[in-house]
Amino acid sequence: VTRVTFAAGSSGDWLIESISAVRGEELPRARHLQRLEGEAFASSAQAVWLLNGVRSHERYVHRDERERLVAVQPPLERATADRAALIPIRKSTAWWALAQDERRGVFEAESRHISIGLEYLPAVARRLYHCRDLGEPFDFLTWFEYAEADTAAFDELVGRLRATREWDFVEREVEIRLRRV
Amino acid sequence: VTRVTFAAGSSGDWLIESISAVRGEELPRARHLQRLEGEAFASSAQAVWLLNGVRSHERYVHRDERERLVAVQPPLERATADRAALIPIRKSTAWWALAQDERRGVFEAESRHISIGLEYLPAVARRLYHCRDLGEPFDFLTWFEYAEADTAAFDELVGRLRATREWDFVEREVEIRLRRV
Repeated sequence: VTRVTFAAGSSGDWLIESISAVRGEELPRARHLQRLEGEAFASSAQAVWLLNGVRSHERYVHRDERERLVAVQPPLERATADRAALIPIRKSTAWWALAQDERRGVFEAESRHISIGLEYLPAVARRLYHCRDLGEPFDFLTWFEYAEADTAAFDELVGRLRATREWDFVEREVEIRLRRV
Repeated sequence: VTRVTFAAGSSGDWLIESISAVRGEELPRARHLQRLEGEAFASSAQAVWLLNGVRSHERYVHRDERERLVAVQPPLERATADRAALIPIRKSTAWWALAQDERRGVFEAESRHISIGLEYLPAVARRLYHCRDLGEPFDFLTWFEYAEADTAAFDELVGRLRATREWDFVEREVEIRLRRV
């Protein structure tokens, strides 16, 4: 697994345009954000807040779905992608108490999470980090990168996901919108 | 999630009878083992080695399987269970590169991991801890407790699991046999 730290503070490659609490407690305001993906979790006395996660194996994606994703998903750090978003999410105890087939059922059969995401590829690049097992305040940190012209598409993507049954199990969600410095 | 530390050293509730490398590198010898399940990962200057993990949600068990497990699985720390085993396992990169449906297919359809385990309940109590996302040397720590009279059953259980296709993906496995002090 590869570790990541998102550090919010007075410096970083991304300028924070807004921090909104979609559900539950918000995160403190800061000016900049840095995504630090590497060997160790970063720590910084200057940081306003730090969120840690790991790139790990897929938990719900099936083989055929992965093939469709891989065929269209772009890399991060495209020169054209001057907008980004970080969306930390925590799901409820009820979600984690479901068995694997029940969670998969809500995730894709009912909520079409993978299928909806596919519709916005390659415009909206996405990377998922896991943090539940780390004892962090969130379960997932999802990072999105897109061009300014695709902002409306990104808005639509997150709006559609939030309208699904899967989101009934989201108990905390913060949306951080960013612009490349 | 609930954290656990297994601490091997000169004291602990369990006497280490043997430490065997089933596959890959072994662990250093020590006299005692303590299972510390609580809020923080334990650290100890006296420890010969420490392994950390978390009790987390189930990754493969379906609803119907969980119901069958819950109906027969015993608690830990039964007065009659004077024998225990700790089996840390690391799986290969090839395993983690499989999609969820492929891993589930190897795990149960091909290897009958859940079904085999069910045959040894309630004799052999079992608790699984996850540690892959923690960056630990192993991916899982499985803890077993059973009565001395069920030692042959436990031997058979681990022997049957090691003969499955799932075990083709195990690249490190250590078996630590214990007796209650």
